[in-house]
Amino acid sequence: MTKKAVCLLSGGLDSAVTAFIAKKQGYDIYALSFRYGQRHTKELTCAKKISTAVGAKNHLILSIDLQKIGRSSLLASSPETIPNHPINEIGRTIPTTYVPGRNTIFLSYALAYAETINAEAIFIGVNAVDYSAYPDCRPRYIQIIQQLARVATCQGVKGKPVRIKAPLLHLSKAQIVKKGARLKVPFSKTWSCYRGGTKACGRCDSCQLRLKGFQEAHQKDPVPYKMR
Amino acid sequence: MTKKAVCLLSGGLDSAVTAFIAKKQGYDIYALSFRYGQRHTKELTCAKKISTAVGAKNHLILSIDLQKIGRSSLLASSPETIPNHPINEIGRTIPTTYVPGRNTIFLSYALAYAETINAEAIFIGVNAVDYSAYPDCRPRYIQIIQQLARVATCQGVKGKPVRIKAPLLHLSKAQIVKKGARLKVPFSKTWSCYRGGTKACGRCDSCQLRLKGFQEAHQKDPVPYKMR
Repeated sequence: MTKKAVCLLSGGLDSAVTAFIAKKQGYDIYALSFRYGQRHTKELTCAKKISTAVGAKNHLILSIDLQKIGRSSLLASSPETIPNHPINEIGRTIPTTYVPGRNTIFLSYALAYAETINAEAIFIGVNAVDYSAYPDCRPRYIQIIQQLARVATCQGVKGKPVRIKAPLLHLSKAQIVKKGARLKVPFSKTWSCYRGGTKACGRCDSCQLRLKGFQEAHQKDPVPYKMR
Repeated sequence: MTKKAVCLLSGGLDSAVTAFIAKKQGYDIYALSFRYGQRHTKELTCAKKISTAVGAKNHLILSIDLQKIGRSSLLASSPETIPNHPINEIGRTIPTTYVPGRNTIFLSYALAYAETINAEAIFIGVNAVDYSAYPDCRPRYIQIIQQLARVATCQGVKGKPVRIKAPLLHLSKAQIVKKGARLKVPFSKTWSCYRGGTKACGRCDSCQLRLKGFQEAHQKDPVPYKMR
């Protein structure tokens, strides 16, 4: 009897490592990604490559209307530009890259999908260490989503709620890179840069955290950078 | 200083009464509806009429991809047909009209919208009395969504979470009709029938609960029925 897991896949490093952890734990992977009006769709291209690499049974890419409600420099519709913070300031305040409700919307779709295919787990690559002060990346947030799974779904009502798994929650970026290397995650197929393009910018918060992670893990990042 | 409320508006009786309650409480209404692959869009037409009638400041209608993940006889893509249960059996089991995760997805968008416009409240017309055994219409569910608002949003982190208001939660359908009549809700602009068409079928669970509510409230339902 196979176990099914819905894996949220952004195309970034963290969700790729998370999907490979799910695979290692014996789950059949049902990948879920979103076209939500991002500035670039490079990360969706990467999400497809990762879902193939991890051998996903299915990969749903849903289009959602975040642009009509959201306000974030990550959205193509936004007048704000992507910030480049000094590395020691990342995470001190909530930056303009924060998309209101994004993880909650993603997880609510994941709950619906998990209920429909009767999955045992949902994997999400949030982490609360090297992150950007987003409220929806904290342990308390994941706990409440687990409670939501208990009350909001038929499986929950029957006493078998889907488990919300966030295996990177307490890891540093360096630990995530090391774990990914052990699991042979094809890092070259992941994309973390907020800016898109053929080479990562090396300056946005996401690039800086990624580069620091690879450096501290003594691993080489195969993604090309404009500058680092 | 005006107070803003996001009001989930389906076009049905309950959400219409809820929006008029929000208005009565002094909120500026920001209505939110969804095109989610329903069998018919009559209810969206009604949602627009209600948002106009209640004087909404804005009305967002978001298209969402529920058909790709959901399984429900309410979805046009479903092979299942709308059931007609005997009235005394409604609510005993979860029927095929249940859409997995629907309210959770709607509320997650409402949380995002509320965060973006800095709303103080979200109004949702769920009720746990004359309902159809859906897990996401129970008081415990609303409590968890309130907790989610505390941890998932910037307002919550700052100690000012949006309030989740479900003023119909403990009312019977008859009490909802009475309240709507007092608030002069234009019942003729609401649509409850799961089937669409020019006349309500009078036989689906939703029609039966509505008709029973009007009867017990000694009110005339202005919506035309094929049979009642």
